[in-house]
Amino acid sequence: MPRPLPSVTELADGIRRGDRVLLGRAITLVESTAPAHQAQAGELMAALQAYAPVQTFRVGITGSPGVGKSTFIEALGKHLAGQGQKVAVLAVDPTSQVSGGSILGDKTRMEQLSVDPLAFIRPSPAGDSLGGVARKTRETIALVEAAGYGVVLVETVGVGQSETAVHRMTDAFLLLLLPGAGDELQGIKRGIVEMADLLVVNKADGDRVQLANQARAHYLNALHLFPAKENGWTPRVLACSATEGTGIADVWATLETYKKTAQDNGFFDKNRQVQAHYWFRDALEQELRTAFYRHPAVQEKLNMLEEAVAAGRMSPFAAAREVLRVVFP
Amino acid sequence: MPRPLPSVTELADGIRRGDRVLLGRAITLVESTAPAHQAQAGELMAALQAYAPVQTFRVGITGSPGVGKSTFIEALGKHLAGQGQKVAVLAVDPTSQVSGGSILGDKTRMEQLSVDPLAFIRPSPAGDSLGGVARKTRETIALVEAAGYGVVLVETVGVGQSETAVHRMTDAFLLLLLPGAGDELQGIKRGIVEMADLLVVNKADGDRVQLANQARAHYLNALHLFPAKENGWTPRVLACSATEGTGIADVWATLETYKKTAQDNGFFDKNRQVQAHYWFRDALEQELRTAFYRHPAVQEKLNMLEEAVAAGRMSPFAAAREVLRVVFP
Repeated sequence: MPRPLPSVTELADGIRRGDRVLLGRAITLVESTAPAHQAQAGELMAALQAYAPVQTFRVGITGSPGVGKSTFIEALGKHLAGQGQKVAVLAVDPTSQVSGGSILGDKTRMEQLSVDPLAFIRPSPAGDSLGGVARKTRETIALVEAAGYGVVLVETVGVGQSETAVHRMTDAFLLLLLPGAGDELQGIKRGIVEMADLLVVNKADGDRVQLANQARAHYLNALHLFPAKENGWTPRVLACSATEGTGIADVWATLETYKKTAQDNGFFDKNRQVQAHYWFRDALEQELRTAFYRHPAVQEKLNMLEEAVAAGRMSPFAAAREVLRVVFP
Repeated sequence: MPRPLPSVTELADGIRRGDRVLLGRAITLVESTAPAHQAQAGELMAALQAYAPVQTFRVGITGSPGVGKSTFIEALGKHLAGQGQKVAVLAVDPTSQVSGGSILGDKTRMEQLSVDPLAFIRPSPAGDSLGGVARKTRETIALVEAAGYGVVLVETVGVGQSETAVHRMTDAFLLLLLPGAGDELQGIKRGIVEMADLLVVNKADGDRVQLANQARAHYLNALHLFPAKENGWTPRVLACSATEGTGIADVWATLETYKKTAQDNGFFDKNRQVQAHYWFRDALEQELRTAFYRHPAVQEKLNMLEEAVAAGRMSPFAAAREVLRVVFP
């Protein structure tokens, strides 16, 4: 962070009035691993009273690499902005520090959306664990919602555990698919298909329209093999072309139908309550670690014992117990 | 745990004399998420003084699904047992709770090795995060080493972040590959190839021998594009047939050469020191959470605030800070 950091109050006020620069800096604060920044981030999150239920809609979007996620999200974002809705695009990619970043890493991939005053795009935070990346993304959701972004699209890389993490922080889950015969479900874990509320076959354009319709029929058929969803919703399958913009309005309308259904049958609120529980626990554990490591007597003991562990004079487990006794005698 | 649990002392003594039944029960204790079990597991780990440097060899093994990891590990394990070495086979699969378990989930997949008195096979623990699964696997490594297993093979599922986790807990990393032309590296992240100390083309048998040799040459060539490794070792590429047992002795000899090289140039010990540091931090944070949640005043406050969070009367972040003040005023 090169420039001097605004105070927590300045950040909170700035976010509440929708200041994009201060919002960006607040997210950078939340993503920072520096202990002082983490402490400030905790204060900011508490100050904003974020995550109290607000009328927002969080949509998780996944799909294999090559399915056109960025183009699709840009098209969907433009559709929303065209309706006058403020939309934020976030990403969860726990592999970004290994592979050098693949999703949303290059903001210019959403050239048109990124310059839209109603849109806010933020790439995946770096992190050495999915838990860390997911936590930062959740806090970022809270920040963009506090800044008035009523729709939050959370992209996930589509190759591992990150779908589960994104599913646990969103209201609806959309799986993007390629047109093609036979092995459409190949490479997509059954668990991910089970999470989806909406399957969308992308690239339904040119001479792929028929293929896309076949794929759509195939998925509709395959969905019958899955158990009924807890939210009382039968997943739908649509086709679209993100590059041509066809079918995008229908995707959004279906998501809104899903939202209304889930709100009416109570699943929407119940799901948010369950998510709030996990977010509470997660926030608590993060704050616990921060407070523990900032404790002067813990730091002193830690410095002493780290050397003993590295030199093999003490097992990590015995050393851990000894440090812990500083706070929990 | 149906049967009454032996005391920590009984478990520690049993493990030290190599009692397989008590070893198995100790691992079950380590894998348990029940707070009382976690506390006992912490005592056991500290009592064993495990993870002090011992002359063991931890080998991480990865590869895409279908590459024949189980057959390969069984062949390698039998080779080691045939030499009179005690070998433990563990697995890290953070997706097992989603997909229903794929690696080592079915012990009978290693029918011959599983009945060998010198071998100990343990499937991946269940867990809702890679961090949790990895932590349990590390503690299991400590347990099997304390029970005298000098070689620990750690299998990983080969589709996401688990390779990084396994790389961080092992001395050597082996990437298993399929013979085949052209796109051999497809589906394998560059970061995983970079981690490998040894690449092994499996299924080099029958009419695939030539294909395997071509693949071997291809990989040898591709490896030149990677930066030199920190451990001063140039990764090697071998071919083998796990089903026929050919090339397995060569794989093990190469791993031993790697080990000797890393020991001689100091990387082996340095790497273990770095790993011990992370294991210490991880053990500390796990113990911290356990002690925190067992604190009566924390439990009381938590019960009060969870309801407020679920009902949306309080943000998770503000609630977290309030619970924390019980221990860190």
